[in-house]
Amino acid sequence: MSDAKDIKGNRLDPWLDNYAARAHGLRASETRSLFAVAARPEVVSLAGGMPNLKDLPLDALADATATMLRKDGGRALQYGNGQGLPALREKIPEIMALEGIDADPEDVIITTGSQQAVDIITELFIDPGDVILAEAPTYVGSLSIFATYQAEVQQVTIDADGVIPEALEERIVQLEREGRRIKFFYCLPNFHNPAGVTLSEERRPQVIDICRRHHILIVEDNPYGLLGFEGQTYTALKTLAPNDVVYLGSFSKIFAPGYRVGWAVAPAAVREKMKLASEAAILCPSSMSQYSIAMYLDGFDWRQQITDFRAMYRGRRDAMISALEEFMPECTWNVPDGGFYVWVGLPDGLDAKDMLPRAVTNLVAYVSGTAFYAGGRSGRDHMRLSFCYPEPVEIREGVRRLSEVISRDLELRDLFGPTSSRPDEGIVAPAPDQI
Amino acid sequence: MSDAKDIKGNRLDPWLDNYAARAHGLRASETRSLFAVAARPEVVSLAGGMPNLKDLPLDALADATATMLRKDGGRALQYGNGQGLPALREKIPEIMALEGIDADPEDVIITTGSQQAVDIITELFIDPGDVILAEAPTYVGSLSIFATYQAEVQQVTIDADGVIPEALEERIVQLEREGRRIKFFYCLPNFHNPAGVTLSEERRPQVIDICRRHHILIVEDNPYGLLGFEGQTYTALKTLAPNDVVYLGSFSKIFAPGYRVGWAVAPAAVREKMKLASEAAILCPSSMSQYSIAMYLDGFDWRQQITDFRAMYRGRRDAMISALEEFMPECTWNVPDGGFYVWVGLPDGLDAKDMLPRAVTNLVAYVSGTAFYAGGRSGRDHMRLSFCYPEPVEIREGVRRLSEVISRDLELRDLFGPTSSRPDEGIVAPAPDQI
Repeated sequence: MSDAKDIKGNRLDPWLDNYAARAHGLRASETRSLFAVAARPEVVSLAGGMPNLKDLPLDALADATATMLRKDGGRALQYGNGQGLPALREKIPEIMALEGIDADPEDVIITTGSQQAVDIITELFIDPGDVILAEAPTYVGSLSIFATYQAEVQQVTIDADGVIPEALEERIVQLEREGRRIKFFYCLPNFHNPAGVTLSEERRPQVIDICRRHHILIVEDNPYGLLGFEGQTYTALKTLAPNDVVYLGSFSKIFAPGYRVGWAVAPAAVREKMKLASEAAILCPSSMSQYSIAMYLDGFDWRQQITDFRAMYRGRRDAMISALEEFMPECTWNVPDGGFYVWVGLPDGLDAKDMLPRAVTNLVAYVSGTAFYAGGRSGRDHMRLSFCYPEPVEIREGVRRLSEVISRDLELRDLFGPTSSRPDEGIVAPAPDQI
Repeated sequence: MSDAKDIKGNRLDPWLDNYAARAHGLRASETRSLFAVAARPEVVSLAGGMPNLKDLPLDALADATATMLRKDGGRALQYGNGQGLPALREKIPEIMALEGIDADPEDVIITTGSQQAVDIITELFIDPGDVILAEAPTYVGSLSIFATYQAEVQQVTIDADGVIPEALEERIVQLEREGRRIKFFYCLPNFHNPAGVTLSEERRPQVIDICRRHHILIVEDNPYGLLGFEGQTYTALKTLAPNDVVYLGSFSKIFAPGYRVGWAVAPAAVREKMKLASEAAILCPSSMSQYSIAMYLDGFDWRQQITDFRAMYRGRRDAMISALEEFMPECTWNVPDGGFYVWVGLPDGLDAKDMLPRAVTNLVAYVSGTAFYAGGRSGRDHMRLSFCYPEPVEIREGVRRLSEVISRDLELRDLFGPTSSRPDEGIVAPAPDQI
């Protein structure tokens, strides 16, 4: 640039002065570089939320995909409908019926993973400074979205039965007294990520009642609902209050995430706005992905596949709990009866975030509890361990390695007091392997 | 709801009071319902921007996809990297090299169509009220995005050689004088949608120079650059000013849109922020789509396919121009030398938006020029005719039907004066077939 007046930004980023307010908070987690290391094959990763796909019938999928392309290729390779492929929308209520949910294909909108559904809902409802209620802890990927839209996230205490209704209402009343605009309650009722707990049947109508009385929309994010290890399911909030809930489903955990196909079921007016917002953002979801999923639902025994997944993940859960009992008796944890995650409490004075580099050095990775709190303001006393992806023998070895790190940190604590904490890092975007 | 105090919103949408400011402007075009009618097979659609895929080798693609799934299925069905599949990012510079652009795979980010890239850039740079410069007319899909982020779009006059540099600078100076924050110039330099024109080589460095002097980022959207009918290409703005341009490419027009794969090449710091924003929005682009495109680029003669596409679209352009000469001598138009679109000027007193229902009744569809102006504030005197999708014989018949409607409207005009105009409809989201 030739003119001194034009030298803006800085040498690393000449456009630094041009970003929107929302972009300034958007930066990578400190732990990003660690995860690059953690991706090395010698590291046992208990960090990622990647489903285990080894049991999918790849050969049959390959054949069926070829047949689909020969028959429907002209449409599968073309632009599609903004709301999603009608043939796929027709099938989705069959999946939801497994959890007792009654959905109309007209109210279904297909999204690029349920992540895009959270993004669109947040875009539609959140002005900067508006409040989103969420569980404490909550899904890191949604926290990233909420930060992008400059929401204030208020996280409400949960226990073994999910969010505590009294705590939820108390927080709402307090926020209303402060004149805050509460837009929705983002809730993961089943096999919570990261906490592994499930909202009890008893509390579900209570939560609905509270939100209804305060006119607060509920966003029910349910990627794991069909992965109860005993085949058990729970009454969806959507079933209890169809007009008060935007329900989010996903094929990522019951089939495969690589297609990036999820869906939302919303009250008609909200669904219409979601469709317009999605069309603005991406025109339409991938036709190829949607035809592939419709082909899978039509031609494969997907119900049996879900049953198989349940058994496989139950075995891994068992491996993790056994290993925790064997190697980490000084920690606390819950025993999840579905989903992918165990939420491990550390002994007093240990810090999950500080410990992570030492864990990776010892060839095991996890996600620090801080990732699941807005602004990383809490959670240093917990870590999320995933049992979804590694083999049971790797899970055991990973927990063993982690126990070595914890033992050493305990020795340091006893010698020098609690391990030091770095300052909290503000808004953190998730790496895809932190899902 | 049991309590009077809780009756909010209205009966059609109980959540009406809860939306963000940006959502209130988001509504479907009046013409949406027309397009549902226009999708009927007896209607010749000169409206859509759907590429013609009949010449793609579907059988070979089916076989190759099956082979790819057998070999790479475990990865193609899994979550991937937020920036995109490295093997695909490595290949994209080969495509860009056909237009003389030198790109580093590290600076490439894969997006869900280039539409998502426009969405992310706008998210990163636009605070409500910020100014985006664009051509007059410009791509309807980007206008939808800009409206979602509450940008003020200032459209600058173009002529047969693209945007007029003097008009661009004059507008910038005026806006700066008013203290407005201009964030970027969104530009479609090649085979413009909808205007069909190309920015002349002479003007390209002038545009760069103006934007650089005023520290305005350029967003160069180039989905059609390889579809010059004589194989001609133009110097990319990215080539002239790598650090001042975010370049957008797409597989939708040179291969197939159904995968929803596009890409951006951005200055490093901007690219890093784009990656974080994309991860927040969708975690990662579809692995299945990316493996499929990488497979296509590796195993197929994609350069020859582009050459074939050029010849096919040239034939359709010729069919449309011949038909216009034969049937619509009272109109004006340009003769595009690439891309998908002819921009047709109507005789004085005719209104493209008012005429559309009559055209659809006469079994032909087009897009009113108003779609390509922010807020629909202009463009009633033009229509966009697409020659990409229908067969040449259908193009001729479509133009013939359209000429009947125009003739009747001319008769009405001569009897009663100019056809009446409905009020402008504000923000309009595009239907995917208006691309």
